[in-house]
Amino acid sequence: MSELDLQQFNPGIDLALEAKELAEAGGKGPIPGVLSDVSEDDGITITRLEVTTEEGSRLMGKMIGHYVTFEVPELRKQDTGLQDRVATKLAQEFATFLERINISKTAKVLIVGLGNWNVTPDALGPIVVENALVTRHFYELMPNEVAPGYRNVSAIAPGVLGITGIESSDIVQGIVDRSKPDLIIAIDALASKALERVNTTIQIADTGIHPGSGIGNKRRGLTKEILGVPVVAIGVPTVLYASTIVSNSIDLMREHLKKHANNADNFLGLLDSIDENERLQLVREALGPLGHDLLVTPKEIDQFIEDIANIVASGLNAALHEAVDKDNVAAYTH
Amino acid sequence: MSELDLQQFNPGIDLALEAKELAEAGGKGPIPGVLSDVSEDDGITITRLEVTTEEGSRLMGKMIGHYVTFEVPELRKQDTGLQDRVATKLAQEFATFLERINISKTAKVLIVGLGNWNVTPDALGPIVVENALVTRHFYELMPNEVAPGYRNVSAIAPGVLGITGIESSDIVQGIVDRSKPDLIIAIDALASKALERVNTTIQIADTGIHPGSGIGNKRRGLTKEILGVPVVAIGVPTVLYASTIVSNSIDLMREHLKKHANNADNFLGLLDSIDENERLQLVREALGPLGHDLLVTPKEIDQFIEDIANIVASGLNAALHEAVDKDNVAAYTH
Amino acid sequence: MSELDLQQFNPGIDLALEAKELAEAGGKGPIPGVLSDVSEDDGITITRLEVTTEEGSRLMGKMIGHYVTFEVPELRKQDTGLQDRVATKLAQEFATFLERINISKTAKVLIVGLGNWNVTPDALGPIVVENALVTRHFYELMPNEVAPGYRNVSAIAPGVLGITGIESSDIVQGIVDRSKPDLIIAIDALASKALERVNTTIQIADTGIHPGSGIGNKRRGLTKEILGVPVVAIGVPTVLYASTIVSNSIDLMREHLKKHANNADNFLGLLDSIDENERLQLVREALGPLGHDLLVTPKEIDQFIEDIANIVASGLNAALHEAVDKDNVAAYTH
Amino acid sequence: MSELDLQQFNPGIDLALEAKELAEAGGKGPIPGVLSDVSEDDGITITRLEVTTEEGSRLMGKMIGHYVTFEVPELRKQDTGLQDRVATKLAQEFATFLERINISKTAKVLIVGLGNWNVTPDALGPIVVENALVTRHFYELMPNEVAPGYRNVSAIAPGVLGITGIESSDIVQGIVDRSKPDLIIAIDALASKALERVNTTIQIADTGIHPGSGIGNKRRGLTKEILGVPVVAIGVPTVLYASTIVSNSIDLMREHLKKHANNADNFLGLLDSIDENERLQLVREALGPLGHDLLVTPKEIDQFIEDIANIVASGLNAALHEAVDKDNVAAYTH
Repeated sequence: MSELDLQQFNPGIDLALEAKELAEAGGKGPIPGVLSDVSEDDGITITRLEVTTEEGSRLMGKMIGHYVTFEVPELRKQDTGLQDRVATKLAQEFATFLERINISKTAKVLIVGLGNWNVTPDALGPIVVENALVTRHFYELMPNEVAPGYRNVSAIAPGVLGITGIESSDIVQGIVDRSKPDLIIAIDALASKALERVNTTIQIADTGIHPGSGIGNKRRGLTKEILGVPVVAIGVPTVLYASTIVSNSIDLMREHLKKHANNADNFLGLLDSIDENERLQLVREALGPLGHDLLVTPKEIDQFIEDIANIVASGLNAALHEAVDKDNVAAYTH
Repeated sequence: MSELDLQQFNPGIDLALEAKELAEAGGKGPIPGVLSDVSEDDGITITRLEVTTEEGSRLMGKMIGHYVTFEVPELRKQDTGLQDRVATKLAQEFATFLERINISKTAKVLIVGLGNWNVTPDALGPIVVENALVTRHFYELMPNEVAPGYRNVSAIAPGVLGITGIESSDIVQGIVDRSKPDLIIAIDALASKALERVNTTIQIADTGIHPGSGIGNKRRGLTKEILGVPVVAIGVPTVLYASTIVSNSIDLMREHLKKHANNADNFLGLLDSIDENERLQLVREALGPLGHDLLVTPKEIDQFIEDIANIVASGLNAALHEAVDKDNVAAYTH
Repeated sequence: MSELDLQQFNPGIDLALEAKELAEAGGKGPIPGVLSDVSEDDGITITRLEVTTEEGSRLMGKMIGHYVTFEVPELRKQDTGLQDRVATKLAQEFATFLERINISKTAKVLIVGLGNWNVTPDALGPIVVENALVTRHFYELMPNEVAPGYRNVSAIAPGVLGITGIESSDIVQGIVDRSKPDLIIAIDALASKALERVNTTIQIADTGIHPGSGIGNKRRGLTKEILGVPVVAIGVPTVLYASTIVSNSIDLMREHLKKHANNADNFLGLLDSIDENERLQLVREALGPLGHDLLVTPKEIDQFIEDIANIVASGLNAALHEAVDKDNVAAYTH
Repeated sequence: MSELDLQQFNPGIDLALEAKELAEAGGKGPIPGVLSDVSEDDGITITRLEVTTEEGSRLMGKMIGHYVTFEVPELRKQDTGLQDRVATKLAQEFATFLERINISKTAKVLIVGLGNWNVTPDALGPIVVENALVTRHFYELMPNEVAPGYRNVSAIAPGVLGITGIESSDIVQGIVDRSKPDLIIAIDALASKALERVNTTIQIADTGIHPGSGIGNKRRGLTKEILGVPVVAIGVPTVLYASTIVSNSIDLMREHLKKHANNADNFLGLLDSIDENERLQLVREALGPLGHDLLVTPKEIDQFIEDIANIVASGLNAALHEAVDKDNVAAYTH
């Protein structure tokens, strides 16, 4: 994520949920042109957002489109039962999402796993690709013999610019031209604004992948406009800036002080007088010169990435192929 | 490598050197239409073959073209000094090879690392890609600021059919269409006919990659005819069939017996009466039904692949970029 | 496995089953002092051997003791259903085995994962250790709060001599002295005599680990005599010598020829006149000088080791802890 | 690192340098009973501290002993030239350190790599062990044939409590009892108080490893008192708490504001009135309830750990064995 990216179009916010919270915090209640619906079930909160108008898009700093977010705060606790439930819910929700945006049940799918398999917090996409149930070659080689209940699925991990020297977007476009999918599902690791969202949140959006989003250094996007095919993005925040931790913590401290302290008036007064963007800028200036403003990730990232990649892959496999048992979505991945 | 592949065009022989040995063994001395030149220096034997005529091609079962083979029997001994010498020699020889086949010093290169990074003996290509010095993005983003001594290089590991559902050849063609290289260098792990060649031999050829070659299940090739760009292939044998070990061993036993035994006449007579292909067929029939005819690889394959991939990447980096120190070729890779 | 080891006490045979076959082949029918019992169920063959007398031990070249072998020829096919069934059977059989050799249900267990985690076919032991359900620290820290249904289990991967400079046996003895287990379960990768047994066979034995067994370079054993604690060994063949493939193949060829050929009399006559050890020696002499006699392993070893280590770990976890669901043994490992 | 540990004996500070800075910040200039000496050379700052009295120990919150710290701010930039220089300096400094604390040149050394090889930022110790040049087995097997210039060195990665169920300290003690080294060198990943020190700092100390230090959950230490053998610890900070980032950032912000702002008096006044420990406590309370106070590590941790482990291993190999070329210390490791 270049500095350039950070100054444009809602700086550094990959999650629609975070953009909405920010927009609502700045404004007065619900945002016009943005529909939202939240459901909670046994530790899994699902938020469905739809940005329906240009005004809503402008206010939220997010494109017109559909956004679904899974929040599972306990997901870092390595509870395999919870992981299975999330994968099952994801399969159901993803199947519904495809229907809602009018993707046919026989649409040919290309799964694109963005990111770098040598950088653990950026390896989400490639690991999902490895665990995706691909079938396109069977349709090519013996079209009449593929069992019912399957769909034509292919998958690619195009690598990152620093390894390939070619924009992921160009690689994918070349492959799309040759393999002619009807839909692209792009998996990407994101930067979050909040430490508690890292490795606990999954976002689905039909707006594609935009330049500067995700962890890598993307300069061209993966969108319907560019590729000629609808692009659904699945993103999971796996890193955040040290400066983001600091800035958010000041908010938490303010709330904490409000509850527990009496004579913190000056401090509160001062903090209230700085808006969030100013404060983040201040933190960046403070951290920057010494090289302190790194992207960081939890110590246990190896296990977290493995777990969440399996959830995403299992969910996708069950959503895309009717033959995959919806009650035992994890059976295929390893 | 499918059974189909094994029945056509010199079954299972990826190395030109092995094809030549086989052709010469069957015939009487040198093969018409095949030029060869061998040099040896301190444990590194370099054989340069050129198949110049259709007759030579037919007799050897190899396409018209240039072939260079490095044989380094001690390469499995993890001697870092020898590894550096091989990388240096490879850089020199590869630069000369490109000149001989009229590739310009400014030709834009796409390195294609074939194979599967999850299957250690098939991971050669992807590891070379990770260690290649790629520069294309600098030429794209700031063409006037690239230091002299570098060349436009990009790299891709397209994955294998079982992971992607798309032929490597199709993926590469899509990328070639978008990124317009002047030359493709394709790296591939091969099956050998001889255990002593596994992880000790490197072959360069300007004939591209043909269907059914290498370890994977390729059904379309990577050749100039298909891709519209010259394709140089760098191959390293990393596996061989159990049946090949058996069949070759019978030869070795025969020679051993000739030297040491007196009364082995019957055995020798019998063995002499069966030609090599018949014998291999016999071994396959014997091993096959019980599933005994696996592709096998040495126990130490993890280290061997790492070492030889570093040699190939170091050699390529120094051959392609004049700015890379030819006397310290290993500095860039890790 | 040093050359020295190969010349003593049934050279190179880690599997009791193979020793028995060899002994029976050489002799006339059942071996005195060796009880055996075989059961087969849906692709899993379980052989229970007991060497009861010195004569049986001498004839078989195996120590007095109990041996159980699982043979699952289809285990290399990556069928997760079969893997679960094998793990479940292993749990049941291992629990029975411990009873038969009078190990109490509350005996404290130390699992020792022999081998080298950087050499894939030798990494079985360390991967089992990573997936073992260890509890000893809970018993040490809060002995009154451990839930019923668990047993005191610890685990160690001591590394190999080339990495540590210390015999595994010495490391284990030091840990036994400090942690006082009642039973050691040692996991080790073995060399097989038969390609079809590689990664398809699991052996349990109460005779411990002997010098020169397994893949590594062991000079002292892990036995009750040395460590003062009973040692149950679980071994899986993951490699074999190229020479072994050749020698066994000649047998298969002979059988194949017997069925299909008429005029192979001379060949058969000759082969019949050489006994198996002579022939193996002949093959070794032929392969040796050129460094052809490597330990080899199937190309797909990365996946095979992962699968079989999970089976062994799942089986152990369910056998050792009553609280682990015997019908869903794989839930704990990852 | 348990909460318990955080409340005792200079909470959470593994680096002597950080303890000294903190002690000096609270007091007035140099600390009595603490000698220090700093040298800087081309990007490498070496600080040699000696805590000589009980008073110095109490004031610094660090034990009496010798501490040497390497600070190399550019070490995260993957400059192989700089890495080689650091390894070379480390070799020289470490050899001098051993002399200063009266370790003989023939003292037998056991290298202990603490930490968990499956958790990347905690894998420093195990990776150093893999790259250590061990020789003890040669001295055991053929004592008269070891070439001059080598020393008796062994190495062990004992694993972590959650994997083994046994305290590292107990495992090491068992091995010490059996293998009788004269000196232990324990390698451990540490938690830092400052993001800029993460993966850029190496500390050597002759005080051993104390309970609660390092990343893991140590309850017993590795010290001369416990093990009966001197213990030199080499530590590298690889993680830090989110709360630490926040707390330190507030300091940086204060300094930044001092330079750039005029009307920040209230804020400054308030911040000055809270001491560092109070502030950290405040941040912890704010972050804690929501599970925000994770240990975090830079996104590029995979590469950083690999680089710094190679530096430490190369430095150790050259310091311990005179035969290893001090000008080319990296030759042995891979």
